[in-house]
Amino acid sequence: MKISARNTLKGTVKKIVPGVVSAEVTLEVAPGVEVVAVITKSSADSLKLSLGKEAYAVIKATEVMVAVD
Amino acid sequence: MKISARNTLKGTVKKIVPGVVSAEVTLEVAPGVEVVAVITKSSADSLKLSLGKEAYAVIKATEVMVAVD
Amino acid sequence: MKISARNTLKGTVKKIVPGVVSAEVTLEVAPGVEVVAVITKSSADSLKLSLGKEAYAVIKATEVMVAVD
Amino acid sequence: MKISARNTLKGTVKKIVPGVVSAEVTLEVAPGVEVVAVITKSSADSLKLSLGKEAYAVIKATEVMVAVD
Amino acid sequence: MKISARNTLKGTVKKIVPGVVSAEVTLEVAPGVEVVAVITKSSADSLKLSLGKEAYAVIKATEVMVAVD
Amino acid sequence: MKISARNTLKGTVKKIVPGVVSAEVTLEVAPGVEVVAVITKSSADSLKLSLGKEAYAVIKATEVMVAVD
Repeated sequence: MKISARNTLKGTVKKIVPGVVSAEVTLEVAPGVEVVAVITKSSADSLKLSLGKEAYAVIKATEVMVAVD
Repeated sequence: MKISARNTLKGTVKKIVPGVVSAEVTLEVAPGVEVVAVITKSSADSLKLSLGKEAYAVIKATEVMVAVD
Repeated sequence: MKISARNTLKGTVKKIVPGVVSAEVTLEVAPGVEVVAVITKSSADSLKLSLGKEAYAVIKATEVMVAVD
Repeated sequence: MKISARNTLKGTVKKIVPGVVSAEVTLEVAPGVEVVAVITKSSADSLKLSLGKEAYAVIKATEVMVAVD
Repeated sequence: MKISARNTLKGTVKKIVPGVVSAEVTLEVAPGVEVVAVITKSSADSLKLSLGKEAYAVIKATEVMVAVD
Repeated sequence: MKISARNTLKGTVKKIVPGVVSAEVTLEVAPGVEVVAVITKSSADSLKLSLGKEAYAVIKATEVMVAVD
């Protein structure tokens, strides 16, 4: 499946914090560059995410903000 | 200002495509890793974004999805 | 690619309105049930969307609100 | 109240999973077509959602992605 | 219609900037407090928004970030 | 840090409801005008939010909807 989300960053699962409804998943997408996702716990289960597994952070371009110092 | 958005990726502006209301901004956040943002044109102007400028991609964790092959 | 977005609604492209940065895409996901997406124009081009083509509306569960009469 | 969200899909509540802060609500918006929403638990309470109740999935067009096979 | 979005801020339309696909709408929700929305142009048309008209800014709680100085 | 999010509403923390992964934070941004945010619990901790503390609600313009009566 090819998706319109402009951002698909390949990485590795570094951390998973499961809640009741949500789960927080941390991916390392480049050395020292981490992206944190909050997804539903059932999605995390369904994707069979585990530490060290290869995964992608997918982000719609309209969700990304830009900041400067 | 310190913000609750969990993801603040430092990068460099690689490309700016201005529209009427929106602008598409591409940041390189690691060698070969780009993040595309769609922000309002007035925000892009107000941040004085230009090619090569250092900037951050800021993304709320609830906006990030996870995918696996 | 399998994605954490809980909502993947199969449909057919009914209408495409291209802007400068964005494009508005209407999918019919069930008889009489339409979903409108605003994606970047470059994504629409890259997906080669055209009228009548089969496509999916993908929506993260945290983006869906619920309303009652 | 009339809202700018382009997508208002009428359906029936099929499932509610309450968490501490969030609740996951599944609506059937057409035969066999389900939409999952994660809303705050207090919103779910305030809307008095219950199984079988008629409700709407409301989604802003900028939150919808498009995918193709 | 009663919606799960936790934030419904009553205000007055102060400014409308129409684009091709999107429109930028500024609401004053309290004296000196403005909220800017980017909605589809067709939504803006359909709501018959005009300067001085009373309207609401509606925001899902998961979309709001918090920052401190 | 200056951010592209068009909406930065200054307020005071009125209420914090911590969950496992998420926390619900209520800010009063004008007399009688409250904005509710759902952020990750770790963000709430990291920002050292507490009742009465000054804070900002930050909202990307594309996340704001408009409604009329």
